Amino acid sequence: MDASQLRAALEERRRLIEAALDRALPGESAWPETIHRAVRYSLLAGGKRIRPVLVLASAEAVGGATDDALPLACAVEMIHTYSLIHDDLPAMDDDDLRRGRPTNHKVYGEAVAILAGDALLTRAFHLLAQLPEDASEERLRRRLAATAILGEACGTAGLVGGQVMDLESEGKAISADALERLHRAKTGALLSACVRGGAVLGGATAEQLERLTRYGSAIGLVFQIVDDILDVTESAAQLGKTAGKDVKAQKATYVSLHGLERARGMAADLLRQALDAVVPFGERGALLAGIARLIVERKA
Amino acid sequence: MDASQLRAALEERRRLIEAALDRALPGESAWPETIHRAVRYSLLAGGKRIRPVLVLASAEAVGGATDDALPLACAVEMIHTYSLIHDDLPAMDDDDLRRGRPTNHKVYGEAVAILAGDALLTRAFHLLAQLPEDASEERLRRRLAATAILGEACGTAGLVGGQVMDLESEGKAISADALERLHRAKTGALLSACVRGGAVLGGATAEQLERLTRYGSAIGLVFQIVDDILDVTESAAQLGKTAGKDVKAQKATYVSLHGLERARGMAADLLRQALDAVVPFGERGALLAGIARLIVERKA
Repeated sequence: MDASQLRAALEERRRLIEAALDRALPGESAWPETIHRAVRYSLLAGGKRIRPVLVLASAEAVGGATDDALPLACAVEMIHTYSLIHDDLPAMDDDDLRRGRPTNHKVYGEAVAILAGDALLTRAFHLLAQLPEDASEERLRRRLAATAILGEACGTAGLVGGQVMDLESEGKAISADALERLHRAKTGALLSACVRGGAVLGGATAEQLERLTRYGSAIGLVFQIVDDILDVTESAAQLGKTAGKDVKAQKATYVSLHGLERARGMAADLLRQALDAVVPFGERGALLAGIARLIVERKA
Repeated sequence: MDASQLRAALEERRRLIEAALDRALPGESAWPETIHRAVRYSLLAGGKRIRPVLVLASAEAVGGATDDALPLACAVEMIHTYSLIHDDLPAMDDDDLRRGRPTNHKVYGEAVAILAGDALLTRAFHLLAQLPEDASEERLRRRLAATAILGEACGTAGLVGGQVMDLESEGKAISADALERLHRAKTGALLSACVRGGAVLGGATAEQLERLTRYGSAIGLVFQIVDDILDVTESAAQLGKTAGKDVKAQKATYVSLHGLERARGMAADLLRQALDAVVPFGERGALLAGIARLIVERKA
């Protein structure tokens, strides 16, 4: 898969996802209007949609149907967006800018922003519980298993726990081990759940799931390392969010702990691990390989 | 079922629920400790556990097994607690007192309180996605259907939407219709989902589900009417939360719109509807009838 094929493959899946996200939410005029406007403002703000694309790519890598994976793809993007809305709140990271636009609470106020996050988290799991009455037993089992993977990744051992650790470690010296643990929870768990959940929905064998778990673990960690690198090397305009904020908040990062060069070396190692893990999938794994490269080579 | 039998029946189920809630959460020493302490502080703070008891009572009314309904019972109490934590935040109702103790953000700070709510909402749906591998197809189907009922009740057409409306109607004159709509969303939807979800897990027939839906709808609304009555007739010490706060916040209530006497009359009518709906369940419906009476006759 060359660069232009990869671009086209990603674009095709992104279009599917945008349409499915739009369908999965009530319209802006649904009652009560404020909350639906606030939810749509953040969820339909564009973005790279890396997480839902990972879900689809992973299901496809094991020969699954895109349609079976689409509800999980929507759910992970809803959950990612809820976590951004809540993390940006004044009581948390107090951020004004996200994806190049004012953050949710800057536009709708704190109360509605908290509720918009709550609504997205709720809708994500609600969506996963909806199946046609004639769905096969196998589809039910896979859906529940994928939902359990997502639930685990978003709880206190994952997304929420990572954010707590992040808040608690601000301005403190933390060890390299603690930093890895923090990021495996805060960023890695959800990315990994995208890959594993997509694989389960696609009908992965135990061996395929094990390989994709390794892939997910590697890209989950490298995603954060690259984020830390970009925070010091790119401008706010390029990132679409405040740059240099980790330095300002005295947050421990891979760059502050290991230096820029070693952080880059770690990212290259993890990329290799991710690529190795998907070799046996051949052409079907090409999209996953392309996404791993994109994560490491991105500029924002 | 006389008063002492009812008390014993409720106590027995409450004990089951307390133990199940405790088991459903990581211990206080699980990493990261802060969030688990915060979650346990609010979830295990006692309370009447009306929602989870309703789940069990409804499953039992249609001849279902308590064990099959217990995960939903835990989930609804987690969701109720998350909504209290978020509603009490300074950006929302700004409350200092809940169940006779300082609110979550007063003890753990706003950031952790927001995350504790997020963690409880996540854990509720995670719990519902967990089933033994050898669970029957029928159990899977019922579990997914009950989860979908809960998801609907907690979203922008229910719990979240009701809270948005509540915030938006503060200090404004709203119609009796708008007030009913608000409370059917904010309080009624979750209570109704307890009854309907429990019924589905218990294997209700279409006719049984229709009757229990009527019961759930009546108690969902009467619960709020009684809350409004208690806000003006009881003291803070009895309520375990700030009294008279609706009047102070200039919130429209059943009492402010209809007067105390008419509000009491509406409560009595709804209680009759609830009791009528469960008559055909005979002895099996006695617990549901008892709970309806308790909701209307409670002092806090």
